[in-house]
Amino acid sequence: MEDLIIVKVGGKVVEEKESLNLLLNDFAKLPCPKILVHGGGRSATAMAQRMGVETKMAEGRRITDADMLEVVTMVYGGLVNRNLVANLQAHGVNAIGLTGADMNIIESVKRPKKEIDYGYVGDVVKVNEKALATLLKNRSVPVIAPLTHDGKGQLLNTNADTIAAAIATAISSLYRVTLTYCFEFKGVMKNQDDPSSAIPLITPDLYEKLKQDNIVAGGMIPKLDNSFSAIKKGVFQVRITDREGLGNMDSGTYIRQAQ
Amino acid sequence: MEDLIIVKVGGKVVEEKESLNLLLNDFAKLPCPKILVHGGGRSATAMAQRMGVETKMAEGRRITDADMLEVVTMVYGGLVNRNLVANLQAHGVNAIGLTGADMNIIESVKRPKKEIDYGYVGDVVKVNEKALATLLKNRSVPVIAPLTHDGKGQLLNTNADTIAAAIATAISSLYRVTLTYCFEFKGVMKNQDDPSSAIPLITPDLYEKLKQDNIVAGGMIPKLDNSFSAIKKGVFQVRITDREGLGNMDSGTYIRQAQ
Repeated sequence: MEDLIIVKVGGKVVEEKESLNLLLNDFAKLPCPKILVHGGGRSATAMAQRMGVETKMAEGRRITDADMLEVVTMVYGGLVNRNLVANLQAHGVNAIGLTGADMNIIESVKRPKKEIDYGYVGDVVKVNEKALATLLKNRSVPVIAPLTHDGKGQLLNTNADTIAAAIATAISSLYRVTLTYCFEFKGVMKNQDDPSSAIPLITPDLYEKLKQDNIVAGGMIPKLDNSFSAIKKGVFQVRITDREGLGNMDSGTYIRQAQ
Repeated sequence: MEDLIIVKVGGKVVEEKESLNLLLNDFAKLPCPKILVHGGGRSATAMAQRMGVETKMAEGRRITDADMLEVVTMVYGGLVNRNLVANLQAHGVNAIGLTGADMNIIESVKRPKKEIDYGYVGDVVKVNEKALATLLKNRSVPVIAPLTHDGKGQLLNTNADTIAAAIATAISSLYRVTLTYCFEFKGVMKNQDDPSSAIPLITPDLYEKLKQDNIVAGGMIPKLDNSFSAIKKGVFQVRITDREGLGNMDSGTYIRQAQ
């Protein structure tokens, strides 16, 4: 099976001009086939404020009413995605910017209203991995915004980490996938204050121990839970790294099944 | 040669929800391969106002400073384009939304500053018709926003009529192209007040006569000049029609070389 690298970037890495340029430089050097999935929450919050749209959060997630959907469609699907593509083209990458609606690559369903009404938020139901593979075979590099659609004309806001994991899982039937989460730390750290303490490999057994010892806690737990879930569903490996480590396959933390 | 229909829509047709839905319904029924090119100027002006960005025009054209480029990237590349794609998918059309940067389909150069500085406006220099043909062969339907790029990372605002004509011209080496301008009138009218007075066919000779007789005047002249220019460069025919005429190939005004 051919290797495929999926890189999810978000936060400051993609929203500050200098680090973005470094990131795109490193991403450009990664071998094809590859896919970039991006966030853009900070820009959306800033633009919402400028437009007089209130940002509401519940349990760390954005509530997406009709006004906020307009903002994220403009920011994720327009400003961030279109500029990423133009910049990647300048780096020699044949990028193509997509939401889940394009070629129907990601269909989702509007999250049912329970205690919290998240509004226009989509939970992924189906990834069209064949359409993505067609683009990859043409040496195009999909750049995917965190928006999906319900197949009935409605765009839906969808978490970028989730999109990256859903694509990785679905396309594992066609490629040997390395799913890379590029964020602000060098990996999963034994000690946040010691940059040399990134744990090179986490197996399911080690993960249990790290949780017991409180080395892995807080926001890292859902990230790793998602990573192990992706591995169980056929993804070859997950890598967690910072921007500087993106091009160095020996850096960061790998998540794999026990051998 | 296989037929290809390119439809350019703009103005009220695409920016009012009811007429848009009717348009997409009719566009969905057109045979593949087909391409949709859209504008979005009214939405951009409204969004600019909401964001406190001043809209400046010179000789009927938008001046695109850095703030306005941000607005049109969000509105054309995000709001309008992404929603068109999601709606077309609901109509069973396998749409894919693109700017000129995606797959490098339209490269342009920033318009040189003369008496007027148009800012971040691009004049088309190269259309990548092969990339478009690859998508068309996969039965995808490109939906193209009026944005291009300079290949150095800069997005540029580009007139949608011009984009439609440039694509039609370039791809005429691969397809027998009907370029369709869908606007608010039934065609080129002998009498604006008489909806039955659309002229069915305009040849170069008739065009000269219509200008002399002042039947064709004002904003219609650049539209027809562009149409004849496209015909001269290899486009099979140009059709000018309103939304209602889109699906009826016998309606509207055709522009062709004299037989």
